[in-house]
Amino acid sequence: MRRVIIDTDTAGDDTTAILMALHHFKVEGITIASGNVEFNQQVENALVTVETFDPQEKVPVFKGHESPMISLPLKKHLTVEEIQGGNGMGDAVFPKPNQVAEDEHAVDFMIRTIKENPGEIEIIALAPLTNIAMAIKRDPTILADIKHIWIMGGINNALGNVAAVAEYNFYVDPEAARIVLHSGVPQTLVTWDASLDYGVIYDDDIAIIEALDTKGSKFFLDVNLFVKAFEFAKRGVDGITCTDSLLAAVAADESIVLKATDYYVDIETGGNLTRGFNLVDRENELGQAPNIRIIENIDSDKFKAMLGDMLADINN
Amino acid sequence: MRRVIIDTDTAGDDTTAILMALHHFKVEGITIASGNVEFNQQVENALVTVETFDPQEKVPVFKGHESPMISLPLKKHLTVEEIQGGNGMGDAVFPKPNQVAEDEHAVDFMIRTIKENPGEIEIIALAPLTNIAMAIKRDPTILADIKHIWIMGGINNALGNVAAVAEYNFYVDPEAARIVLHSGVPQTLVTWDASLDYGVIYDDDIAIIEALDTKGSKFFLDVNLFVKAFEFAKRGVDGITCTDSLLAAVAADESIVLKATDYYVDIETGGNLTRGFNLVDRENELGQAPNIRIIENIDSDKFKAMLGDMLADINN
Amino acid sequence: MRRVIIDTDTAGDDTTAILMALHHFKVEGITIASGNVEFNQQVENALVTVETFDPQEKVPVFKGHESPMISLPLKKHLTVEEIQGGNGMGDAVFPKPNQVAEDEHAVDFMIRTIKENPGEIEIIALAPLTNIAMAIKRDPTILADIKHIWIMGGINNALGNVAAVAEYNFYVDPEAARIVLHSGVPQTLVTWDASLDYGVIYDDDIAIIEALDTKGSKFFLDVNLFVKAFEFAKRGVDGITCTDSLLAAVAADESIVLKATDYYVDIETGGNLTRGFNLVDRENELGQAPNIRIIENIDSDKFKAMLGDMLADINN
Amino acid sequence: MRRVIIDTDTAGDDTTAILMALHHFKVEGITIASGNVEFNQQVENALVTVETFDPQEKVPVFKGHESPMISLPLKKHLTVEEIQGGNGMGDAVFPKPNQVAEDEHAVDFMIRTIKENPGEIEIIALAPLTNIAMAIKRDPTILADIKHIWIMGGINNALGNVAAVAEYNFYVDPEAARIVLHSGVPQTLVTWDASLDYGVIYDDDIAIIEALDTKGSKFFLDVNLFVKAFEFAKRGVDGITCTDSLLAAVAADESIVLKATDYYVDIETGGNLTRGFNLVDRENELGQAPNIRIIENIDSDKFKAMLGDMLADINN
Repeated sequence: MRRVIIDTDTAGDDTTAILMALHHFKVEGITIASGNVEFNQQVENALVTVETFDPQEKVPVFKGHESPMISLPLKKHLTVEEIQGGNGMGDAVFPKPNQVAEDEHAVDFMIRTIKENPGEIEIIALAPLTNIAMAIKRDPTILADIKHIWIMGGINNALGNVAAVAEYNFYVDPEAARIVLHSGVPQTLVTWDASLDYGVIYDDDIAIIEALDTKGSKFFLDVNLFVKAFEFAKRGVDGITCTDSLLAAVAADESIVLKATDYYVDIETGGNLTRGFNLVDRENELGQAPNIRIIENIDSDKFKAMLGDMLADINN
Repeated sequence: MRRVIIDTDTAGDDTTAILMALHHFKVEGITIASGNVEFNQQVENALVTVETFDPQEKVPVFKGHESPMISLPLKKHLTVEEIQGGNGMGDAVFPKPNQVAEDEHAVDFMIRTIKENPGEIEIIALAPLTNIAMAIKRDPTILADIKHIWIMGGINNALGNVAAVAEYNFYVDPEAARIVLHSGVPQTLVTWDASLDYGVIYDDDIAIIEALDTKGSKFFLDVNLFVKAFEFAKRGVDGITCTDSLLAAVAADESIVLKATDYYVDIETGGNLTRGFNLVDRENELGQAPNIRIIENIDSDKFKAMLGDMLADINN
Repeated sequence: MRRVIIDTDTAGDDTTAILMALHHFKVEGITIASGNVEFNQQVENALVTVETFDPQEKVPVFKGHESPMISLPLKKHLTVEEIQGGNGMGDAVFPKPNQVAEDEHAVDFMIRTIKENPGEIEIIALAPLTNIAMAIKRDPTILADIKHIWIMGGINNALGNVAAVAEYNFYVDPEAARIVLHSGVPQTLVTWDASLDYGVIYDDDIAIIEALDTKGSKFFLDVNLFVKAFEFAKRGVDGITCTDSLLAAVAADESIVLKATDYYVDIETGGNLTRGFNLVDRENELGQAPNIRIIENIDSDKFKAMLGDMLADINN
Repeated sequence: MRRVIIDTDTAGDDTTAILMALHHFKVEGITIASGNVEFNQQVENALVTVETFDPQEKVPVFKGHESPMISLPLKKHLTVEEIQGGNGMGDAVFPKPNQVAEDEHAVDFMIRTIKENPGEIEIIALAPLTNIAMAIKRDPTILADIKHIWIMGGINNALGNVAAVAEYNFYVDPEAARIVLHSGVPQTLVTWDASLDYGVIYDDDIAIIEALDTKGSKFFLDVNLFVKAFEFAKRGVDGITCTDSLLAAVAADESIVLKATDYYVDIETGGNLTRGFNLVDRENELGQAPNIRIIENIDSDKFKAMLGDMLADINN
């Protein structure tokens, strides 16, 4: 069984991605990065998700960096409670988890696990890339030992989600994204637009999930229906946008990928208008070697089937 | 008859746009901006084009700024002889024109003509926007008197032509583009991607043009076949990309526009990677009022018919 | 007699510099740039100054650019009525001048005069460098024909006047300053700090000027006493800071210069904190050839004597 | 006895600063940051210095970050072997130290020591501020527990050492410097220019040190005479520039400080020319509260006496 670390700012679809990963992989640990909502709430959300998957099986959760790389300590980064609900769980209420977070720092856990298992560990990155970049800065020797990084982030067009031309994860910590993208580690990107094109759960999909009537399907709907109203109001998308879980599905089963292309990708960290924008050099104007594989077409039906199967299966 | 000034860095498709404009409008004058090839060659190209259209009717040509706004005097801007041929005319050889350029500076001509005809003059902008921006800076009162600016420039996606995410005209003089876009003058943009989507003259179109066997059709083919090989080698487009003439056709006959949308557009003038990129704020993340109408769908057949009719008509 | 053009945003010490230049040079014309106060007020201030010097001798005044190079047309630049008074004349009231501004644009006047007198014309630059840069952009051939540019601007330390590390003239139009500094024309700079070190008119100097009791001395005091209170409140300088007139004196009589050094100077046009800062590469870290002579020590007594002689002489 | 952590890129005068600190403080540990020369050489230099001070007393040395915060992992930062010698010890050869570096990461050691001794620990920062900034990012709660940070870095004028307007430590990691300066921790800065003004050991000073003829004086001369030739060739300073040891002396004995002022200081992290420049807002143009105390005048004789006493004392 493939072994992964999940790095997440757990809120909304992060939870589904965690469930998907728990379903398909041996998850060595879950590390929490600053992102969607208040940091400790994210930790709790990850623990709730782990216990939802299986109250018996303990998957350790590690606290990581609570702010982006170069944000000043007290400067708040952009959080998105209006998208994910105040608690990041669509304002649904869950019992406090029994499990607690580990003492070890997320970055130390990453480095230790990777160094103990050279070439074995894949990272599923669902958040701003702060923890992963910080691990690379702290111990660059891990670069040779990471098997693959699967990243939800960026855009493969010119339409951002929280900024005119930037996607949330890259926008919140562009310096971290830049370090990861240029790390030389084999990596795959599922962009925000791919989520809109292939990852939207519409009303008829929701009906199918409702009909499952499992613990998994109920959890999914409790957490994720909140975002539907937001996306509809903001961009007329009448469904639940699966971003992180789409990435997790791609990581788990390559057969749902219909098209993927290697590109040179870089991040604008300066600029008056474009900080956090990720350039995809489709026609190789910059003459650089490709550094990342971007998923450009996904079998949406197959993804939804994977999602349904997984949610059906969670019924402890 | 509508009255226009054409601002052009005359090379390749600029010539077709000039012919198209001469066919449909009263052209008050043609102003030359720094751009595609050596400046005086561009002046000559404009004169050759005017005489090709009608050796009897003199349309005055005015020399404008020979370098972008803030380029240092001796610093060369990017020219594109590899795209347009060394002389900007696909290396085709034409007799020296009889007409010569006027003494009046392009910027003075623009200001004078606009001030003498308030609300009458439209500008067809085919080049980096240096001359127009310099006219605005020199006499901001013209802003209220310009009827419309039609601009070939920028991108409506994330794929540039001479830079990873920037189109030539905006890339060469981003400061000028910024001044024009924020001028408050009603303006319409035909972007580079629209040219690729609706303005490519393929082999069968070329065959039809060849069959016209007029002075106009021969001139078109002499000047433009050169770019076909470049575009095919660079991006696999096996045809002549009409960019400027597509804009001129849109300006001349609104009925070929199938979709146009008002957006807030701004230009990145800083940045490490994105100087010259024009942001199109499709979902209004920046909360600004729209400042430009972007043409998003064009009746390509109708454009080609307009092109053919115009070239057929030039046979003096 | 040496022939000069004065470029000025006429307010406060600009007037003294104009008087000083009229006293020492043949002034071909005075061109007005956007700067200290409202544009047309500056034009009037220049005309008032010219008539104060000699009501009979007409020195033409030309209107130039009303905003910095890349400021958007409607975006106001920084003006400094709190330093110069609402009318830029220390709120002193003067009769309306009889002379009016010329019709020719300042930039055209500059270019024409320089081209008609190659190697003869020196420019005394007392304002943001917009007009001069615009003249260079419009006709780069003037570069070979300008004899010298004398500039009041920038700093030779790390202490600005209107920004933490930028002086007003360079801060208002950094792009113009950059173009002029890199123009290759021989040029001399009197910086803001030199004004503080060598150009402050203290109470005992003021007493001497008062005692002159001429039209010139009264005009000087009417216009300039206003700034004294401002400078004292802001930086504890209890005197009238002569900046422009110090430059004019340096231009007029090299013998007051005690030390001058050639340096490579460049302007920061980007940056989060430092836009408008002029780097003086004292130890040649950048390996560039010097492009400007900076005046580093001035005989302050001699300057004050020049000032007194000049003001004494104006008593028509 | 006051308790300190020394953060150092040990080369040249870092060694003297370490000796000075060992002489005056209880040094809890020495942490190594990327900087002057190859990283492991710096570790060895620190160990050699510790053993020079006292072969019996073990002061632990911890390895920290081997590259600046946002440098890409494989991108080399600026090292300065031409200033410090290839080994950072003026090419003097020393026996391999017996002591070895600790296993604990420098950042972890910092955080642990500070958290175990709230309000007790002062940091003496002699290097690019990477380790300290990384500790702050990893555990911002340390901010309330650090007693003081003493920093050698930046400039209090407009004259850098390795860049036209930037000092080495701030230039190498401007983002880290920015985080530390804005941390809210009480801090004191000794700038590069202060070193030139008050910290140069001239020939007669060297003669006095030579005459001490102790292990300490010999070590000082072995390591530091190298830089003398460099400084003389580059900027005509005919002596050994004590920068780090000047800071250490200031930290140890406040009575050598003749003038210190609180200022708002910020770092330019963008810019075309000024990355790494630290703005000192002397006249509070930015309206920010002061965040750092800058030492502006030092009793140079007293410093040299402290240096001599300390070197005399090392003779184990």
